[in-house]
Amino acid sequence: MRLLLENGHSNLTIRAVAQAAGVAETTVYRRWPSVGHLIAAALLRLTATDNPIPDTGSVEDDLATLLSQIVALLTRPDVMRVVRSAAAIDDGGAFAATRAAFFDARFTASAAIVERAVARGQLPAGTDSHRLIETLVAPAYMRALLGSRGFDDDFVDSSVAATLHGFDGRTGPPRP
Amino acid sequence: MRLLLENGHSNLTIRAVAQAAGVAETTVYRRWPSVGHLIAAALLRLTATDNPIPDTGSVEDDLATLLSQIVALLTRPDVMRVVRSAAAIDDGGAFAATRAAFFDARFTASAAIVERAVARGQLPAGTDSHRLIETLVAPAYMRALLGSRGFDDDFVDSSVAATLHGFDGRTGPPRP
Repeated sequence: MRLLLENGHSNLTIRAVAQAAGVAETTVYRRWPSVGHLIAAALLRLTATDNPIPDTGSVEDDLATLLSQIVALLTRPDVMRVVRSAAAIDDGGAFAATRAAFFDARFTASAAIVERAVARGQLPAGTDSHRLIETLVAPAYMRALLGSRGFDDDFVDSSVAATLHGFDGRTGPPRP
Repeated sequence: MRLLLENGHSNLTIRAVAQAAGVAETTVYRRWPSVGHLIAAALLRLTATDNPIPDTGSVEDDLATLLSQIVALLTRPDVMRVVRSAAAIDDGGAFAATRAAFFDARFTASAAIVERAVARGQLPAGTDSHRLIETLVAPAYMRALLGSRGFDDDFVDSSVAATLHGFDGRTGPPRP
């Protein structure tokens, strides 16, 4: 993590990681077969602790909490250095698959928000949870990575409103 | 463009560009004061010709055409190499500003779609065109850059539907 944050992905090698950790290269390779796996592991570690899946009882609040956590992560320089590294690499193979698996895991975990909302009657049955969460979070990633605007106070609330509305969500208290 | 596509942004220098073009470095610096400016110019050139702002008379068709063009660009390896370069750099200064200016210009141009839709009664007065276009296109950028899924046949239509719905758009023919 330190090497990645200090020097970026283009200077990260298994050899350097092994030296910094004081272990043999084979020890690193056994758990992380490529630099891509190391970057994905760094992403996972940075996000998992600071981005739990909320369960507030309200779909609006769940989505607002989730997006607020993501915006908080995406405004941290250390996190952005790793996200930029993850976006920069185009090996068309091992790393692309690892990166995809990381984001698929996040989308799958977030799907619980949508499933609970469907059970409460706040979203229609059959709502595509991956598409809904993607619609919610993608503008945050695009702003952070390609940076045409920062995050204003209204960003989270207007994203939640447009997303819920776009997927026929019922706002307000759950159906009794 | 050739150097960028062949070697990526981390090996791009003004000196190499000047040598490849057979001109003095000062000649390059006069128009593109930094490598960031060169990358932004490359993005502009790649997107401007293949991504005109549609004007079909229907907001649904305009948004579908715009997003289809963007998806077509984001599935081209040469375009993605430039977009990944643009996302990778975090200089917190000159390049970030140039990159932001590029995307702001694209959002401003696309706003015409929203303005015409408001004039036709297909979207409410006061619709935030930047937010609407961002909601439409951000999932495409996130998928292309962080790659948890490819683009299926339904991607464009479902993105347009969720976006229009999310911003209270009236689908179907314009109000007479």
